[in-house]
Amino acid sequence: MLKNIPHCISPNLLKILMEMGHGDEIVIADGNFPAASHAQNLIRLDGLHIPEILEAILTLMPLDTCADSSVFYMMHGPETSAPPIWKKYEEILQTTDNQTVTPSKLERFRFYEQAKQAYAIIATSEQALYANIILKKGVIT
Amino acid sequence: MLKNIPHCISPNLLKILMEMGHGDEIVIADGNFPAASHAQNLIRLDGLHIPEILEAILTLMPLDTCADSSVFYMMHGPETSAPPIWKKYEEILQTTDNQTVTPSKLERFRFYEQAKQAYAIIATSEQALYANIILKKGVIT
Amino acid sequence: MLKNIPHCISPNLLKILMEMGHGDEIVIADGNFPAASHAQNLIRLDGLHIPEILEAILTLMPLDTCADSSVFYMMHGPETSAPPIWKKYEEILQTTDNQTVTPSKLERFRFYEQAKQAYAIIATSEQALYANIILKKGVIT
Amino acid sequence: MLKNIPHCISPNLLKILMEMGHGDEIVIADGNFPAASHAQNLIRLDGLHIPEILEAILTLMPLDTCADSSVFYMMHGPETSAPPIWKKYEEILQTTDNQTVTPSKLERFRFYEQAKQAYAIIATSEQALYANIILKKGVIT
Amino acid sequence: MLKNIPHCISPNLLKILMEMGHGDEIVIADGNFPAASHAQNLIRLDGLHIPEILEAILTLMPLDTCADSSVFYMMHGPETSAPPIWKKYEEILQTTDNQTVTPSKLERFRFYEQAKQAYAIIATSEQALYANIILKKGVIT
Amino acid sequence: MLKNIPHCISPNLLKILMEMGHGDEIVIADGNFPAASHAQNLIRLDGLHIPEILEAILTLMPLDTCADSSVFYMMHGPETSAPPIWKKYEEILQTTDNQTVTPSKLERFRFYEQAKQAYAIIATSEQALYANIILKKGVIT
Amino acid sequence: MLKNIPHCISPNLLKILMEMGHGDEIVIADGNFPAASHAQNLIRLDGLHIPEILEAILTLMPLDTCADSSVFYMMHGPETSAPPIWKKYEEILQTTDNQTVTPSKLERFRFYEQAKQAYAIIATSEQALYANIILKKGVIT
Amino acid sequence: MLKNIPHCISPNLLKILMEMGHGDEIVIADGNFPAASHAQNLIRLDGLHIPEILEAILTLMPLDTCADSSVFYMMHGPETSAPPIWKKYEEILQTTDNQTVTPSKLERFRFYEQAKQAYAIIATSEQALYANIILKKGVIT
Amino acid sequence: MLKNIPHCISPNLLKILMEMGHGDEIVIADGNFPAASHAQNLIRLDGLHIPEILEAILTLMPLDTCADSSVFYMMHGPETSAPPIWKKYEEILQTTDNQTVTPSKLERFRFYEQAKQAYAIIATSEQALYANIILKKGVIT
Amino acid sequence: MLKNIPHCISPNLLKILMEMGHGDEIVIADGNFPAASHAQNLIRLDGLHIPEILEAILTLMPLDTCADSSVFYMMHGPETSAPPIWKKYEEILQTTDNQTVTPSKLERFRFYEQAKQAYAIIATSEQALYANIILKKGVIT
Repeated sequence: MLKNIPHCISPNLLKILMEMGHGDEIVIADGNFPAASHAQNLIRLDGLHIPEILEAILTLMPLDTCADSSVFYMMHGPETSAPPIWKKYEEILQTTDNQTVTPSKLERFRFYEQAKQAYAIIATSEQALYANIILKKGVIT
Repeated sequence: MLKNIPHCISPNLLKILMEMGHGDEIVIADGNFPAASHAQNLIRLDGLHIPEILEAILTLMPLDTCADSSVFYMMHGPETSAPPIWKKYEEILQTTDNQTVTPSKLERFRFYEQAKQAYAIIATSEQALYANIILKKGVIT
Repeated sequence: MLKNIPHCISPNLLKILMEMGHGDEIVIADGNFPAASHAQNLIRLDGLHIPEILEAILTLMPLDTCADSSVFYMMHGPETSAPPIWKKYEEILQTTDNQTVTPSKLERFRFYEQAKQAYAIIATSEQALYANIILKKGVIT
Repeated sequence: MLKNIPHCISPNLLKILMEMGHGDEIVIADGNFPAASHAQNLIRLDGLHIPEILEAILTLMPLDTCADSSVFYMMHGPETSAPPIWKKYEEILQTTDNQTVTPSKLERFRFYEQAKQAYAIIATSEQALYANIILKKGVIT
Repeated sequence: MLKNIPHCISPNLLKILMEMGHGDEIVIADGNFPAASHAQNLIRLDGLHIPEILEAILTLMPLDTCADSSVFYMMHGPETSAPPIWKKYEEILQTTDNQTVTPSKLERFRFYEQAKQAYAIIATSEQALYANIILKKGVIT
Repeated sequence: MLKNIPHCISPNLLKILMEMGHGDEIVIADGNFPAASHAQNLIRLDGLHIPEILEAILTLMPLDTCADSSVFYMMHGPETSAPPIWKKYEEILQTTDNQTVTPSKLERFRFYEQAKQAYAIIATSEQALYANIILKKGVIT
Repeated sequence: MLKNIPHCISPNLLKILMEMGHGDEIVIADGNFPAASHAQNLIRLDGLHIPEILEAILTLMPLDTCADSSVFYMMHGPETSAPPIWKKYEEILQTTDNQTVTPSKLERFRFYEQAKQAYAIIATSEQALYANIILKKGVIT
Repeated sequence: MLKNIPHCISPNLLKILMEMGHGDEIVIADGNFPAASHAQNLIRLDGLHIPEILEAILTLMPLDTCADSSVFYMMHGPETSAPPIWKKYEEILQTTDNQTVTPSKLERFRFYEQAKQAYAIIATSEQALYANIILKKGVIT
Repeated sequence: MLKNIPHCISPNLLKILMEMGHGDEIVIADGNFPAASHAQNLIRLDGLHIPEILEAILTLMPLDTCADSSVFYMMHGPETSAPPIWKKYEEILQTTDNQTVTPSKLERFRFYEQAKQAYAIIATSEQALYANIILKKGVIT
Repeated sequence: MLKNIPHCISPNLLKILMEMGHGDEIVIADGNFPAASHAQNLIRLDGLHIPEILEAILTLMPLDTCADSSVFYMMHGPETSAPPIWKKYEEILQTTDNQTVTPSKLERFRFYEQAKQAYAIIATSEQALYANIILKKGVIT
């Protein structure tokens, strides 16, 4: 543990976040995501849920403001309303200096392909539907 | 994730618990414990607390009923009452078929020495005082 | 050994099953299958047969109910009746909450190709004909 | 699989048995033995029992006829009769050209110490009481 | 050394032969073959010659009777008679239950390509001309 | 780079600091210290000087307030005044919530011995005399 | 530390520079560059800035005078004047026997591609805009 | 050191030369060649020059007499006379039973490509111009 | 294969012999010797016998003429005549410039202890009694 | 190769020299020294002799002026005059700012023990008698 580092950030996750540069991506995956088979670097945070981790990461890591998108969801079907977990994510984005971010949606297997290219995947125990999310790192100025 | 395996048990922790045999010990350490410098096998469960993990482990792993002690606390000073977290531990022991267990107490540096000999140490984010605990595995019959 | 974990599941197999996510596949191969040359992760269970392992895995791992198929056999010739071992497999599927699964059949070399993409292959000592089987993992809800 | 090699002998176990020389020891341990924490080389045969493995090994490996003892049991208490599993072991010894072997008995923690010095430990799922056994390899002439 | 295992089979070669499955191939290469640069698994048997090793392997490993060919030679020129070493090979095949095998011949660089795909290459000190040989493993029934 | 992490802290140093627990020690060594031959974990920060690193570490890591000493210098001779670099260190301690710390001094080879037991050594390019320093980590409450 | 080697050159960087040959490239990247995800060999110099490192490297390593370009910048937009950091780089080139070098400019993602092919990437804490630079090694005569 | 092995042959180079087979190639590269970035197996002989190494290798290793070429130079420009170092190489070939060898010349980047496919590259400190050379191993009969 | 290197010397054995220096020892062990459990470096020459290997090694490696003994046998009982294999060894010593060597004899377990300290052990398939031998390397002048 | 680095210093040796600190030792060993069996870090410079390497190292590395001795020879017998190679060493010391160094002499097996504790051993092809030498690194000020 260190001062001012949220408890859910493991030493290895902190190292990974710090190694990432402009444009590198990290996936925060739900409990059913095939993380081990898709990850270039795998970080396990079993027992934790995505909103807590998302909030902790965003206190440390800026999102990319140059790219078209710096947040990606895994698409759900043609339903009319967004899944409840996305609402939580947007509240967290609002409170962490990322008010202008507009998340993109990716079809399941395109999401898997993009996850394979990401610098790291965090495996969580999240059980909410459609909870997988990709973040693209921005720059520290 | 698998059916009937508590979410806070990571794949690697489950493998470690299963590899352990009669008399092998595992430490569940608080957030300030020097886990990396003392562990033969290190398992990190950042963001989690000990009671949840203790309960999950005891649903899977029996304690040693042959040994003098199969639960060890890190001693606190000459105060009159036990730390609150020990009460929680004893409630958990009661509800997991370990009613007859009488925990032993070890002075800080003797606890460290025993932890070094343990098969594994789990590093948590527990912040309660005097929360470190060692479990000695029993037999499956 | 742990409580409620079937004896034929090794620590490493349990870890592999737990790491697998939605859509990941595992092969349970007979004694003559070229497992070592095709496996990304190889688990050896020499001396054991497939039905016992299949039953044990299905007590822990759900099958994919979204995919067209979540069970694959290696095709046998144009005979009229299914090999006896497939009957056993279907009885096991019936008794493990997988009543609606309809296995697919793959020609030998297509089966080999799919096995190469699987997350893991279990090498057994099964000697029944046409016994190789692939399972696709579903979600824990 | 190979011709004339019993199915319960894994490729790695066969290699280990072949690498062993005159006086090297191998432990066949029951399901509760702390194998991972004591083994210099660990071979897992989950799901199998000791008699089958003992018989298979003795078809391939001679016992040491120069040493005082080439078979060691883990001692049980001061009971009057030997545990049933020892009877099975002695029948197997009789039928594999090892009629003259007289097993020795070691107290639990002395057995553990000798197991630590052994070239390998085989972890099984044996559940019979007092089933642990050490074999000392002899010479091929 | 083990009972009934020919002396020229090393522990590692025995493990490799046992890991191989139906359709996997192994090359027994002469002393000049570029074995280290082509082998996925390299086994060195310096000082030995191919006929002795071929005979030993065939006492343990069946050849593939389903494939068009289960024995491959490296082609020699348009001469009229087969090289003397091939005669020895055929005598060995005759005496090891492989009477029906008809070896195929491969041009040098096609032989090299097939050797690269083989599960293992055994490097020997064979000096006979055109002595390189590939074996395809069959099934144990 | 991450928000609020000083630039001189490398990803690996941050991971090491976070892995350390109560009582673990870290050495910040000058450019001539035999760091590679004494370190259990070696972190190189070539081109940097100790005061900057000390200040950065103390913004993240508390010192041990239970131990007799949590800061150790390498002793200089029987001179009357402390080396100038120690003054800088004490100013930094003052401004980072460590006002009550009283550094201890160790003779050169005792300092080396303690450095060997430390969890990590940071190799810098510091050239000031008597600049080596050991820090003992405290607890996060 | 060694005589005449600038302090900001770490042992590993020196080894890398020495291993490089005619035409091999090295990237000196700013603090936001995705160095870890693009580097074949990664050297971290956290806390340092590019001009100091560039100057140190050029005292040791000649640039390629045969190639069309031996210095590459990451392009900035269609502005009229060069970024201030480029001026510093050109002053350093002037004072290190590289007066005739004419740097080339690469669009961001072409720069990333070329960085992936480089022998090594040095990750710094440089914060100036458009500071990334690639050097192509020449020959020692 | 061993009897009759030239001093400039290191233990690892000797092993590499011995592992090579018919048609495998080895590069002896000058001091500026990008050896580390192109080598599948890298052998460093810093401080030595190519003629001494070439002569030593040819006392141990035959050249390929079946291939069109078994010696390759890196081409120099359209000058009329061969570089002096090639004369030395040809004298060495004359005195080592390789009188009939006719070296081929490869354009710089084709030479680099062929070097990448070679079994090993030896990095020397040779400073003569156009000194790089590739040797293709022949057969021992 | 290389010119003038006996066929029974593998690439790895040649490297080991060359790495050895004045006073380093190598064991040539018979087929029953516990080589894998005693060797710091293990070289397998399955299928070969000791005299051929001894002769080959002595063509390359000098024995130590400073030490009291440079050849060690494993003692046999109080019989009156030396085992036949020792006669062969002495003939080989005579024909390889080692006429003045007087072998020492070591009791079995002292021989094992010395073998553990040796730089390497060669495991052969030798079956002659009392065939184990240790050689101490001398100097090349 | 780099500017101003002597050719006989390999990249790895340069890295090792740079990693060494005050009091660390390096051995430059002759061709018969048992370097591989005694070295914590082994650097091979086959084909080279000690004087050239000694001179190159002393242009880069200062000797320890605090220690009683910073140069150690391996003792020769009770002869009256020093071996010729020691004269060369002393000339080199004179010309490299180490005029005041007085070498110590160590008996052969004490030299071996000290070599085992050294940070690195350089294996050369030196053939002069009594040529082994140990250097103790000083400080860069």
